Order: sequence, then C-alpha cells, then structure tokens
Amino acid sequence: MSIQEASERLRNLPYEDIGVAKLDHHRSLRSGFGEVVFCQGKATEHLVKIYEAFWRDGVRVLGTRATPEQFEAVHQAVAAAQYDPLARTIRIGDAPRLAGKIAVCTGGTADIPVAEEAAVTAEFFGSQVERIYDVGVAGIHRLLSNLPKIRDANAIVAVAGMEGALAGVVAGLVDKPVIAVPTSVGYGASFGGVSALLTMLNSCAEGIGVVNIDNGFGAGYLATQINRLALCGTTRATD
Amino acid sequence: MSIQEASERLRNLPYEDIGVAKLDHHRSLRSGFGEVVFCQGKATEHLVKIYEAFWRDGVRVLGTRATPEQFEAVHQAVAAAQYDPLARTIRIGDAPRLAGKIAVCTGGTADIPVAEEAAVTAEFFGSQVERIYDVGVAGIHRLLSNLPKIRDANAIVAVAGMEGALAGVVAGLVDKPVIAVPTSVGYGASFGGVSALLTMLNSCAEGIGVVNIDNGFGAGYLATQINRLALCGTTRATD
Amino acid sequence: MSIQEASERLRNLPYEDIGVAKLDHHRSLRSGFGEVVFCQGKATEHLVKIYEAFWRDGVRVLGTRATPEQFEAVHQAVAAAQYDPLARTIRIGDAPRLAGKIAVCTGGTADIPVAEEAAVTAEFFGSQVERIYDVGVAGIHRLLSNLPKIRDANAIVAVAGMEGALAGVVAGLVDKPVIAVPTSVGYGASFGGVSALLTMLNSCAEGIGVVNIDNGFGAGYLATQINRLALCGTTRATD
Amino acid sequence: MSIQEASERLRNLPYEDIGVAKLDHHRSLRSGFGEVVFCQGKATEHLVKIYEAFWRDGVRVLGTRATPEQFEAVHQAVAAAQYDPLARTIRIGDAPRLAGKIAVCTGGTADIPVAEEAAVTAEFFGSQVERIYDVGVAGIHRLLSNLPKIRDANAIVAVAGMEGALAGVVAGLVDKPVIAVPTSVGYGASFGGVSALLTMLNSCAEGIGVVNIDNGFGAGYLATQINRLALCGTTRATD
Amino acid sequence: MSIQEASERLRNLPYEDIGVAKLDHHRSLRSGFGEVVFCQGKATEHLVKIYEAFWRDGVRVLGTRATPEQFEAVHQAVAAAQYDPLARTIRIGDAPRLAGKIAVCTGGTADIPVAEEAAVTAEFFGSQVERIYDVGVAGIHRLLSNLPKIRDANAIVAVAGMEGALAGVVAGLVDKPVIAVPTSVGYGASFGGVSALLTMLNSCAEGIGVVNIDNGFGAGYLATQINRLALCGTTRATD
Amino acid sequence: MSIQEASERLRNLPYEDIGVAKLDHHRSLRSGFGEVVFCQGKATEHLVKIYEAFWRDGVRVLGTRATPEQFEAVHQAVAAAQYDPLARTIRIGDAPRLAGKIAVCTGGTADIPVAEEAAVTAEFFGSQVERIYDVGVAGIHRLLSNLPKIRDANAIVAVAGMEGALAGVVAGLVDKPVIAVPTSVGYGASFGGVSALLTMLNSCAEGIGVVNIDNGFGAGYLATQINRLALCGTTRATD
Amino acid sequence: MSIQEASERLRNLPYEDIGVAKLDHHRSLRSGFGEVVFCQGKATEHLVKIYEAFWRDGVRVLGTRATPEQFEAVHQAVAAAQYDPLARTIRIGDAPRLAGKIAVCTGGTADIPVAEEAAVTAEFFGSQVERIYDVGVAGIHRLLSNLPKIRDANAIVAVAGMEGALAGVVAGLVDKPVIAVPTSVGYGASFGGVSALLTMLNSCAEGIGVVNIDNGFGAGYLATQINRLALCGTTRATD
Amino acid sequence: MSIQEASERLRNLPYEDIGVAKLDHHRSLRSGFGEVVFCQGKATEHLVKIYEAFWRDGVRVLGTRATPEQFEAVHQAVAAAQYDPLARTIRIGDAPRLAGKIAVCTGGTADIPVAEEAAVTAEFFGSQVERIYDVGVAGIHRLLSNLPKIRDANAIVAVAGMEGALAGVVAGLVDKPVIAVPTSVGYGASFGGVSALLTMLNSCAEGIGVVNIDNGFGAGYLATQINRLALCGTTRATD
Repeated sequence: MSIQEASERLRNLPYEDIGVAKLDHHRSLRSGFGEVVFCQGKATEHLVKIYEAFWRDGVRVLGTRATPEQFEAVHQAVAAAQYDPLARTIRIGDAPRLAGKIAVCTGGTADIPVAEEAAVTAEFFGSQVERIYDVGVAGIHRLLSNLPKIRDANAIVAVAGMEGALAGVVAGLVDKPVIAVPTSVGYGASFGGVSALLTMLNSCAEGIGVVNIDNGFGAGYLATQINRLALCGTTRATD
Repeated sequence: MSIQEASERLRNLPYEDIGVAKLDHHRSLRSGFGEVVFCQGKATEHLVKIYEAFWRDGVRVLGTRATPEQFEAVHQAVAAAQYDPLARTIRIGDAPRLAGKIAVCTGGTADIPVAEEAAVTAEFFGSQVERIYDVGVAGIHRLLSNLPKIRDANAIVAVAGMEGALAGVVAGLVDKPVIAVPTSVGYGASFGGVSALLTMLNSCAEGIGVVNIDNGFGAGYLATQINRLALCGTTRATD
Repeated sequence: MSIQEASERLRNLPYEDIGVAKLDHHRSLRSGFGEVVFCQGKATEHLVKIYEAFWRDGVRVLGTRATPEQFEAVHQAVAAAQYDPLARTIRIGDAPRLAGKIAVCTGGTADIPVAEEAAVTAEFFGSQVERIYDVGVAGIHRLLSNLPKIRDANAIVAVAGMEGALAGVVAGLVDKPVIAVPTSVGYGASFGGVSALLTMLNSCAEGIGVVNIDNGFGAGYLATQINRLALCGTTRATD
Repeated sequence: MSIQEASERLRNLPYEDIGVAKLDHHRSLRSGFGEVVFCQGKATEHLVKIYEAFWRDGVRVLGTRATPEQFEAVHQAVAAAQYDPLARTIRIGDAPRLAGKIAVCTGGTADIPVAEEAAVTAEFFGSQVERIYDVGVAGIHRLLSNLPKIRDANAIVAVAGMEGALAGVVAGLVDKPVIAVPTSVGYGASFGGVSALLTMLNSCAEGIGVVNIDNGFGAGYLATQINRLALCGTTRATD
Repeated sequence: MSIQEASERLRNLPYEDIGVAKLDHHRSLRSGFGEVVFCQGKATEHLVKIYEAFWRDGVRVLGTRATPEQFEAVHQAVAAAQYDPLARTIRIGDAPRLAGKIAVCTGGTADIPVAEEAAVTAEFFGSQVERIYDVGVAGIHRLLSNLPKIRDANAIVAVAGMEGALAGVVAGLVDKPVIAVPTSVGYGASFGGVSALLTMLNSCAEGIGVVNIDNGFGAGYLATQINRLALCGTTRATD
Repeated sequence: MSIQEASERLRNLPYEDIGVAKLDHHRSLRSGFGEVVFCQGKATEHLVKIYEAFWRDGVRVLGTRATPEQFEAVHQAVAAAQYDPLARTIRIGDAPRLAGKIAVCTGGTADIPVAEEAAVTAEFFGSQVERIYDVGVAGIHRLLSNLPKIRDANAIVAVAGMEGALAGVVAGLVDKPVIAVPTSVGYGASFGGVSALLTMLNSCAEGIGVVNIDNGFGAGYLATQINRLALCGTTRATD
Repeated sequence: MSIQEASERLRNLPYEDIGVAKLDHHRSLRSGFGEVVFCQGKATEHLVKIYEAFWRDGVRVLGTRATPEQFEAVHQAVAAAQYDPLARTIRIGDAPRLAGKIAVCTGGTADIPVAEEAAVTAEFFGSQVERIYDVGVAGIHRLLSNLPKIRDANAIVAVAGMEGALAGVVAGLVDKPVIAVPTSVGYGASFGGVSALLTMLNSCAEGIGVVNIDNGFGAGYLATQINRLALCGTTRATD
Repeated sequence: MSIQEASERLRNLPYEDIGVAKLDHHRSLRSGFGEVVFCQGKATEHLVKIYEAFWRDGVRVLGTRATPEQFEAVHQAVAAAQYDPLARTIRIGDAPRLAGKIAVCTGGTADIPVAEEAAVTAEFFGSQVERIYDVGVAGIHRLLSNLPKIRDANAIVAVAGMEGALAGVVAGLVDKPVIAVPTSVGYGASFGGVSALLTMLNSCAEGIGVVNIDNGFGAGYLATQINRLALCGTTRATD
C-alpha cells in the first residue's frame, strides 16, 4: 500500500455524526467484532441515542462503566441490551465463538469488578477467559497452586490494588505477555491506585505492559489483541 | 501438568550463586535465546564476574544501561563482548535469525537512545525491527506518511517524551498492540517523563500497554514476546 | 499618557462596595461589553445582591458555574436573568452583534459542558463560535475532516480531558493561537485533569496557551480578546 | 476549501528526511518567516547536519536552548550562524522588518534569560519588543510606573518565578492577552517552577494563557501570532 | 529562672483527665484569656463532656470548626454557649476588652468564612479587628484604596485561595508582620489550596508567616500574639 | 491619611533603575536600617553593579545566599564589603545597636547554616540573637534544659529538617510567636524539606508562622519585625 | 529443615476455596490464635460466606474495617459474631489469656478509632494493652506524666495525625520498638495523613517502624509479634 | 517508678555540649552498647571534634553515611577509627559478643550498600546477621530456596528498590517481624524510592514495619531491638 493510498483510506474512513457524538464503525467494518462505548459521564439521553444508532446499524456494542440507571434507559429504547452488574457493562449482540485463552488473575476479592470488566471485554471480542481470583502474593502458595492454569494462556491480565505486586511475581513465573491493571482498592498511602501503578511500572520482571488504574476494559482489549495474534500468526500481519 | 509438578519444577529451577549475584538461566535453558543483565548501578568488578560466568557457561547475554567504562572492564575480561554506544548495551553472542517484524517509532530525535535500547533488545531476542524516528504528532503528516510501514508490524513500540501523545495517535491508526515508552526527554512540567507517562496511561485509544519511563528494554522484550506469539500461533501455548 | 496619569487613573477606578463584594465596572465602562461573576461558592443571598446591583446599574452580566438553585433565586429577583443549563451560566442583557470567528473543539462528548462555558462566554463578549465536538486524536480522521472549519477561525479553543493530546495536534495543523483547556474528565491516573494539563503544557507544537483545568470561561475570554485584536488591528493598540 | 482539499494538502506537506531528523518547511514556505530548532539534548553532529540542511535550503532558522559548545560546532560548519549567549539562541538569517509591539516583563533579574528567549523569538518572527524587567509585585510601584508602556503592546509576556504573581496583577491592569511564563527561579517550595506555574493557572484575572516552565520560546511565538493577527486583522483569516 | 525550676514547672503543669481528653488550663491560668477546642472530628458526646468540664471550671472557651449539630448538643448541656455560623465557632464566656488592632483581608468573597474564623479568634483573645474583604490582586485598585486602614494595624491576616497572591502584594506595601492563610477556595489546579499555599511560601516580599490551608484560627491566634507584644512591649518578655 | 494620599505616596516611591535591576530604597529611607539583596542566581557583574550603587548612595546592605566567588568580585569593587561564610551573607555597613532578643533554635547540627542566615539577618536589622543549636526532639531533655533561655525572647525562630517537629514542641512550651523554618536537611522521604514543611504547617500547637524551606532570611526578618513591635509598642502603629 | 522440605511445606499449605475467596488457615493451624478478614470493600454476601466458613471450621476470626451494615448481615448468619463500633471490628471466638503488655498512645482524641483498631487487634492475638490517649506533643507534659506506663511495655504503638510528631518524641524517650501509625486526621496540608506519614518516616529517633495511614490493625499485629517474641525469647526461633 | 521520678530522671539526663553539638550518652550509659553519629552533611572539623569527644570518654561509636574523606580526617585524629567502605560506616570500639540472629535480604545487587548499613549496625549493637542477597520476587525460586535460613531469624530486614515487593512476599512466608527498607535504586517512575516505599506501606501481608528510603541504619537498629527482646524475654520489661 502506498503512502497516497494510506492517506486516501484515512480520509475516507466512515463515521456517523449523530450530533452529540461522532460514531466510528472501523472495528466492526474491519472485523465484524463490534464497537465500544465508554458510558461514564455521558448524559443518559446521549447514551440512548448512541445505542439506538448502533442497534439501527446492526452493530454489536459493548458499553463499559455503565450505571444501572443508564442501563434502564438504554433497555427502554433497545430491548436487546443486556446488563452485567458486576462488570458494569451494557451489551448488544450475540456472543462470538470464543477461541484462544487468556487468564485474568486478581490479588484480592475487592479487585473482582475490575477483573470482570477485563474478562467480559475479552469475551466480547472473542477470547476464552480463565478466571483466577484472590491469589495475591501475601499467601503465595495460592498463586503457585494455580500456575499451570495461568501458564496455559496466551496472555495474562493481572489485576491488583494496594501493593500491586501480583503482576511482577506472575511475570517472573510465565513467559507470556502480562497486562497489569492497578486498581484503586486500598486506603491511606495507596492513593487511589497510584501505589499499585508504580509497583507495576517498576517491576523487575520482563514482559509487563501496564494500563490505567481500574482500566479493566483496556487490559481485556489488549490481551485479546495479543491472543488473536497468537491464533492467527503472521497472516494477521497483512491486515 | 499437575499442581505438584509445577511446584516441583519451580523448586528445582537452576540458578548459579556467584556471591555478588544469583544468576538465572531460565530463558536460555528454555529457548536458547539468552539472558539479560541490568548494568546500571552495578559495581564494575561485580559486572565483570557476571559476564565471565555467562561466557564460561556459553550463554548469550544482553546487558543494558552500560557505561563505556563498564564495557571497557568487561571487554578486558571477555574479548567477545560488543558495545552499542547509542543503545548503551553490552552483548555477548551471535545474532539470531530474525523473524517477524516490530516497529519502533519516536516522537523526536532526543528519544532515539531509548528507542535503540528497545530495538537492540528486540533484535537480540529475534525480532526484525523497523525504525521510524522523529514522527511526533506536532507534524502529523510525517506520521501519516509512514503509516503503511507501521501497520506492517506485529507490534509497535511508541517512544515519546514531553507530551507523549504519539502512542495514542498510533494506537488509533493501527489494530496491533502498541507498547508505549514515555521518555524523560523534556523540561519544566514534563517532570522527568511523568507527563508523557500520564498521557500514555490515559489514552482514549485501545490496545496500549505502558512501561516505565525510559524503559526501552522492557518495551523491546514485550514486543518480541508478542511478535513470537504471532509467529508461532497456538503452538506456543503448550510451551 | 504619563506615569502620573496612569496612577491617577488607577486610583480613581470606580468600584461599588455592596458589603459582601466590591463590584468592578471597568470592562463595561470601557467597552460596553458587560461584566462577569464567578458564582461557585458564593452564598445565594450574596449572589442575588450582586445581580440586583448590576441590573440596577444597567450592566450586562455573565455569571459562570451557577447551579440551578442559584439561578432560581436570582431569577426571582431579576426576571430578565436567563440560565443555560449546559454551560451553567446566568446571563442578563441582550446579545451583542457577533463578529469574527473562534472555533471550540472537544476531544469527547464528556468535555462538552466545559466547551459550552467557553462558547457562551465568547458569544457574550462578541465572538462568533464554531462548535466542533468529539474529534479526539484516537480517531484522527474525524479531526482532519473538520480541519477547514478550524483553520477558518481567528483563535481555537481546544478542550480535552484524559490524555489531552487534542491541543497539540490541532496546533500542529493550524497557524493561529490555540487556547488549551484541560478537563477533569477521566479516571485513575488522569488525576482530575492533571494528566491533560501536563500534556498541554508540554506540547511540542508552537502557539498554545493553557488555562486552568475546566476553565472554559477563561479560554472563551482569552480567545475573544485575540479575536477582537484580529478584527480591529493596530487601532486597538491605543485603547 | 473542501474536506478533500484539506486532506490532500496535509498529505502532500513537504518534509526533508535527513536521517537523524525529518525537517519541516511549513512555516517558511507559507510565510517566509523561518523555522525553529530545539537544540537541547540533540547530539552535536545531528545539530550541525540540521543547520547545514537549512542553510543549504536558504531557510532562516532560530535554534533555542543551545549551549556555547553546540554553537561552536554549528559555527564551524555554517559561518553565518550567530549566538546570543543570554537567550541561548543560534540564529541564521537577516532580521525581518519589525512591526507591532509586544511587551516582555519579568518579576526579577534572575528571570531575564527566559525573558530574552521570548524576546529574541518574537523579534525573529517580526515583533517589536518592549523589555520591562524587575517589576515584581513585592514592590508594586515599579510595575505601576511602567504601566503605560505595557498597555501600549498588542500582547504581554509575563515572566516570573517563585510566587509568580506578576501575570495575574498585569492581566488585571490591561485588556490585552497576557502570556504567562513560570520560571524555575527559586528554591525550596518553588519546586523548580511548579509554584509559579500553579499561581498563573489559578489567576483570578481574565485573559491569561500559560506556557511550560521556562518556555520563553513558546511565549514569544504565541505573542507574535497574536501580534500579527492584530496587525493584519481579518485578512489573516483566509491564510 | 533556673533549668531546674523550668522542669519543675513543666512537670507540675495542671491538666484535667476527663477520659476522652486531657484538658489543659495553661492559657487561662496564665492570662485569664480562655482555652480553645478543635471541634472537627470529635464525637458529639465527647465535645459535650469537654464543654461541660470547662463550664464547670469557669473557663472561657472558643471551639472552632463546629457544625450546627455539634452546637445544638453543646447548647443543650451548656445554655451559655453561643454559635457563630459563618466562623463556625462555639463560644462560652464574655467578650474581653479589645485593644490594639489587626487587619483581616480576603482576596474574594468565598474566603470570608476562613477570614471570620481568624477574626472571631482574634477578638476572643482580645484584638480589635478591621475586616477588609474582596480586595484580591486581579483588581488592585480596591486593595490600594484600603491601604491606609491596613497600615494602621499591628499585624495583618491575608486570606486568599486560588493564586493566593494577596499576601505577597500586601507585605510589599506595609512594614508589619503578615500572616498568610491559603484557602481551599478554587478548582482544578488549585489542588484544594496547595496553589495558594505555595504562592505564599514563595513570596518575594519580606515579613510573611504562613499557616495551614484554611487555618483561620491559627492566623487569628498568631496575629493576636503579635498584637499583644506590640501593646505590652518588653514587659511581656518576663512573662 | 486619606486614600488619595496613600496612592500619591505609592506613586512617588523612589527606586533607582540601574539597567539590570530596579533598586528600592524604602526600608532605608523609612528606618535607616538598610536594604537586602538576594544574590543567588544573579550574574556576578550585575551583583557588583548593585553593590556599587548602594555603596555610592551610602545605604547599608545585606546580601544573602552569596557564594565566595560572588563575594570576591563584590569585594574587589567595594572594599568595605564583608563575608560570613557560614551564613553566606555579604554585608556593607556598621552594626546597629542591638535591642530586644529573639532566639534561634535548630534541631540538628546540619541545620546551622540556615539558622545562621536567620541570626545574621536579625542582627543586621537590630535584634539581639540567642543561638540554641542541636536541641531536636529525639532527645527532648536538651530542649527542656534550654527552655528558660528560649522563653526569654520576644520571638523564636525554630529551624529543623527531616521530621521538623521542633517548631511544634517549642510552640507548645512558650507563649511567643514561633517562626518555623523547614530545612532541606535529610534524605529519602524528606523530599528536600517537604516533610519538615508539612509537619510545621500541621502543628497542633498555636502561634506558628511558617516560611519557605531553607528561608533563614525570611524568618530572621519576620522575627525582627515582631521584636521591634514588642520594643516599641503601639507607638509603631503610627509608622 | 532442608530447602526441599521448605518447598514441600509451602506447596501443601492448606487453603479453602469458597468461590469468592481463598481462605487461609495458617495462623490458626500454627498457633491457634485465629484468622483475620479485611472487610472494607467486600460485598456483604461474600463477607457472610467467609464468616460462615470460618465459623463452620471452628476458627477464631477478627474482621476489621467493618460497617454496622456488614455486621448486621454477618450476625444474622453467625449469632456468635460480636461488633466493636469504635474499632469497627467483627469478632468470633473467646478472648485468649492475655500476656505481656504493649502500649497504645494517641496524639489526640480524633485518633482514637485507629488506636482502638490496634488495641483490639493486639488483644485478639493475646497482648495486654495499656491505652494512653490524647498525649500529643503540643502539650508535652501530658506525655511526660505517662512515661512510666509507656516504658513498662514491650512495644509501643504511637498513633497520630496532622504533624505526627508523637512517634519520634516517644521513641526518643524509650528503648523499645515503636510502631508508628499516621492517621488521616487533619485538614489542608495534612493531605489525608501524608504529613504525619512523612514525619514518622523521617524521625531522627531510633527504633521506629511505620505502617500505612490509619492501619491500626497492622500496628497491633506487629506489636503483638514483638510482644510474643519478648515473652518467649529464643525458644520462638525454632517455630 | 513514679511520675516525679520519671521527670527527675529526664531532667538530669547527661549530655555533653561541645559547641557544635550536644552529645548524648544515654545508650552507652544504660547498656554499654555505644552511640551513633549521622555523618552526612556534617562539616569535617565538627565530625572530628565529635569523634574525639567520644574517644576521650571511652564510648563505642558507630558513624553512618560517612564519606572516605570524612574517615580520613577522623582517622587522623583517632587512630582507632575503622572504615567500612560498602556500608559507609566509621566505627570506634571492639566488637560485642553477638547473640540471636536477624536476617538481611535484598531484592537485587544494587541494594547491597543499604543492606550492609543495616547489617553492620545490627552487628555493632550485638546481633548475628544472616545475609541473603539478590532474592527479588521476579525470580521467586531464589527466595523460596533460602526460606529456611530466613525463618530461623528473630527479625528480618527486607531491602528492595524499584517495585519493592520483597517485603510483602517475605512477610507472607514467615511469622516474625519484617523491617522493610525501600531503596532509591531504580529509575523513571521509581521516583528515588517512593515506588518501593508505597509498595511496602501497602503490603497485604501482616507484620511489616517500614523505615525511610535507604535507611539501613534504622532497620538494623530496630531489628536489633526486637532481637534483644526475643533474647531477654520479659526481664527487659523492667529496664
């Protein structure tokens, strides 16, 4: 593809202007896998308009950080919408055939909502997900017991708050990419997740990529990108 | 593999205690790809001992953040050691056959040393590297012109200081994992790379994993893990 | 004008002491353009007193960061007061004849309230405003499609939260002053707008002036000052 | 200009790839006013290559944050290069005819180098500069005495470290855009300019745009953009 | 007084242990001026016990940061208690004869509650207070108009949020101690008063002592200590 | 004095413009006590010019934060200049008759340079100074032994780094104003004096005003203002 | 015990997987002293399941940071559960025979809830606790009066917010380990306990270990570990 | 001991005033174990005076953070002084009989100097020290292999920089007090040890006390206090 073709393609990328937002359709056009909406902070009537537009166009959608109130309004307009209260997602569209496995681990029980956002996102985009929760490093035998299941994945999402050491210990025990998700779980000098974030960025173990605090969605998406590369091999390189 | 086997295997992992350090041989035993040494802050005589031990054992080694003085001393002891002054690496061992491509991009010229650490690391572990430097978002036509080359890689390393917006713009233009490396390039409110780090963590584009400020090594390693998964597909999952 | 005249003029500047505040009338005396009130944190009875005083004096006023409750009370006392719930402004006075154009862009939908504060302020002081919302850099084709409209303005207000990269990319594409407004939109490591603020301060593109987080008013005012200079040319220099 | 024309124009923007950098020629092509180079952190041989390329192309250049050593090397290669040790700039090219006035004020004597970077930049791009130094708010009569000269400018650059209150007080006394430059002058809780930066961002006075700490160049450039708008009026809007 | 006498005196200092607190009576024993209670965060029943104990002992008391609910409960138990809703104080005891003047200035209207805490404290301990509110530096003529009243005080309390420049400008205009009180008034990069705090600590003007953010009590107390020294001269040195 | 007279007086305040600086003569004109120069960061030739101008005008001067090199150059030009290497001051002019006592205490030995800056400043402006060093709270008997000497002063300067608890403990033991000076002495989590600064701002004891980290000058000046008020009593209020 | 035995033991450590959590039984198996649950942030139904599991197994449990609502639900399921509203703990199991003494001191009254969490934890694991509250350094005679009781303990827990100087002063007066607990009590520049945390980390006195802000549990546990070592002497070393 | 006796004893505590410092002799008087000097930042002649005084009095001394230059000067004056270049200590006095064991572990090789400061301090005060270096969590099998030796100690000092996860993992594997020492080893977002400090403060494992960044001395001292309690049992409680 020449430079001119690249620019041409970029210029002509479709988006739909519905007034309150400019909706992309790249992902779904390219792959059929569906689009995403970040619901937090959006006015409810705007969110409803967005879901209606996607539904009208027959596009699969995953909305994250949605409140029950937002779901109520969306559901009123689009009966096919489904809510996952733990992951806080609003989904439209059938489940894809899942292929290739990622693992989602948490340090503690309080990290589970963020982990579920990652897991649900990964499943929405086609990954099988192995959930391994409450295996923080303060009782490291629990992690070691689950090592075989973790090593069996193409990518690992490590979710932890407070000290956030889980990602580094896991990365030292496997040779697959680890997506580290710091959470805002904790108190005092955890500073809303900063402590865990710094721990993860400073890990001595190789093979860790970090996402924003509580960003389960981003981790699930990145892990799935890697998983799909692992499934398809170099053939994807021509995408 | 059962839980018992996993623990067994972990317990019996070999390491070599040379007094000043406990050298691992996992990576090279498993894959033949070689080991790494973080040279910064190590006393020169310790570093020499470490290189001598690896040389004696016939292990390929890549040392990062090495000063010319450290190299002089290592070279005295191990004539086969080679220095890359831009990437600041000390290498022992032949080049592997390179397979699969990653792209390493920088926002500016001052980011090149960090980018080279990433590129040299990726090459040491077997990736082909496309270098695309000085394509920061302040002159976005330079980035758009190079888009086809970037899209042709299995993973992209985006290296940028100051505002650090390169990673997010790239991730919005490709559908491959982007490893974002904030650099300490800048002044004033760049706070030694914190500004670029925050930009990358907060990117609205999907598919970004962030590493520590100036951590070219970590990015090159992670990109290569992904690249090798892309090459081998699910067969690696049994590794 | 001599130094003595300057001091004289300063000393004699009128202000009206209404007990709870000392009201300035500079702007309106000089230009007939009206005054501003920062409503946030003001006790309701104080705010009412202030509006009553301006209304009595026949001065146009724009109050920012006003709650609906504050408006209710002001409206009770001054029936001519008008509320804009999105921009959160309380206005008294007719619209001026608009002249010269500024553009107000946002990265996302959640940045719109801050953008509206900027737009309404600019209109209050006499600028035409082109609104271009939801053109963040994660989908850069949306921004490029709107470039001609942006380039057609005398000054651009770029409003963005999270990574905040919009201002730098815009400034690289136009040769007009860009007023960058970081917003507190985001979560985790966006730190209430600090991430976007740092991005904007560290932009590599030339021609950016930054205002406080969420300070739509300040951006709209500054853009209008520039717009009016562009309209009047050097004749303003004798003001 | 249609959207298609805008994209076309963007795609075809010229840049010169000299290996170590990708040189833009936008500004000079458009306006004949010349290009800029940020010298800090660039390897000397790279900097020499860049200056040689611009000199070969007959482009006026202003390099900022240049050390005497960098200048020595550049001067060796391009005899026409000139150094300003206070502003730390390396310039190639004749002075333009200066038109329209900006004012550059400092709080103290130690802020002068940053102020000179702003002033030299403004002059390089065609502004007349009125320098008004050491008029900090701790002795406010010095500022008041110079008010008529300050009011006579199309834009004011206010440079101050430590408490950084100069910008706000000036903005309260004039009705022109004030570009605020915090400096790293100070000690203790000035935190390398953060104190002055925060003061300027939080100013209660209207009409202030802030640039990065010590960013004299950025302030001089932005002030000149405004100054040129003031000179040309709406005719510039078609640029 | 010998060292032994000092220690003796210290050891024997009276305090009353009422279980939930250990009440001092130093101040009132020494000077008859009364004691203070920091009400914030205290359980209501504890606060009531404390007020009852002081009332029983006939000690004048000033409680700061008291909620209306806390006052209700205290008033139930001690009918003589009086509440000031603006300063948020609960007082027991007659007013002292006021002597010597301090001035309390604010930058804006929203700083008044903190200023009133300072003023009421100063009055409780015997100072006359001149209140000069809404004289922030963005409209410096309002401050200059009130300069004679400010200069007439033995100490000045300068209360300001946001940029916090008031203290430095005042200190440059008078030759009396200025007690600077940063307030949490503001938004965005004011960081709950940190911006104003840093401005005040970094002021170039001489003669400023800073207290904690929103600490009107501390400023009023310190200003009164100075005022009383000014009244009594060296005779106090034998206290 | 009327408002008009105040403005008049302000407008006519003398200052001497020597090009690189605008020298005030207020203090010396009013009180004969002399002027101050902050030497840090000033170019040597500028500093020499400033000292020459003051010497020519017969004004007493105290320069702080002066290096030995700066003194050498000043001394060359003004033979009467004297250097104090511990306090790092350059003084011109005879000692005044000292009256009224302040106390300067330090937590440790490493705080002494900052304490000497405070002491020398206080002496320059006419205070007697009692030096009480190395009385930190980790060995509180050393402080208690010196209590009588501390209580004998009109104001206390408490200089401490690291934990910075000295100021609060002293303020709890005396009933005079305490000027707290945090120092940058320490390591690790002392963050260049931030730890001590926060301790001092948060002290539960009454009667503390805090100055910038390492700001011995500011503390000595403020303590002397208070000392002079204590000496002169209300007669100063007409100054 | 050989390395192999250690690994063996680790691998076989029991834990009970109840779905939402993986419960350890180490402590109780080893010592009979009971287990702990961090209740904060746990969903109520999860918490109930955990308590039911421990109750079923006959394990003593101490839950910390429990709300009254959480207790209600737990109590419904396990009637033997007991709530301490001040310490916010839910306990199952009889009191152990207390042996060896620790002291828990607070700076103020508002620190008592954190102190009670420490005290209740220490008692749960078998320590006698001496409570000494409201002995902050602003009135140091109250601390000195209680010194004999403090010195009589095997370990001291020092709980303080705001300036947090209590730990350092106590450590200077005793020769036993001091566990310092910063609290979030305070306002303004106490930054939710950061000020006290830094004070404690920077103390010049020897023998201080610091725990997280408000972490009364951690302090009580650590003090009890030390207390038990003091009771048992070297015999524990074979545990 | 009565309150009166405690105060008496405190008042009469001996210290020696040698002008530049006030030397305590508590520790050595009570226990014969010797005194400590923090050498960093002390002027060389002051340090020499201090060592001479201790030598004259026959007191064992351990000086920490000493440079070779400081040692040279001290050695000139006191020939018995001995330097440990790795731990950077200057010691006077014979070794005590060592009793009871503590373990000192490090995450990496670069942490060894801080660990040696801890180890030498512990030995100076009478503890046997087991050194276990380079057992960071990125290769957790190295730590597990050394577990028996770690469990055999009365207290563990865990020294780690970067992510700092060592302390938490160790504390989860032993039931003895763990003293956590964050080090400034690292780069980028390790912020000079802040990352490791936060990790340690936020550990989910029980039984951790944290000291300041790089404070090997403090950790060695505290571990020895605990070790001595473990040796002596409750008999120490009467000390």
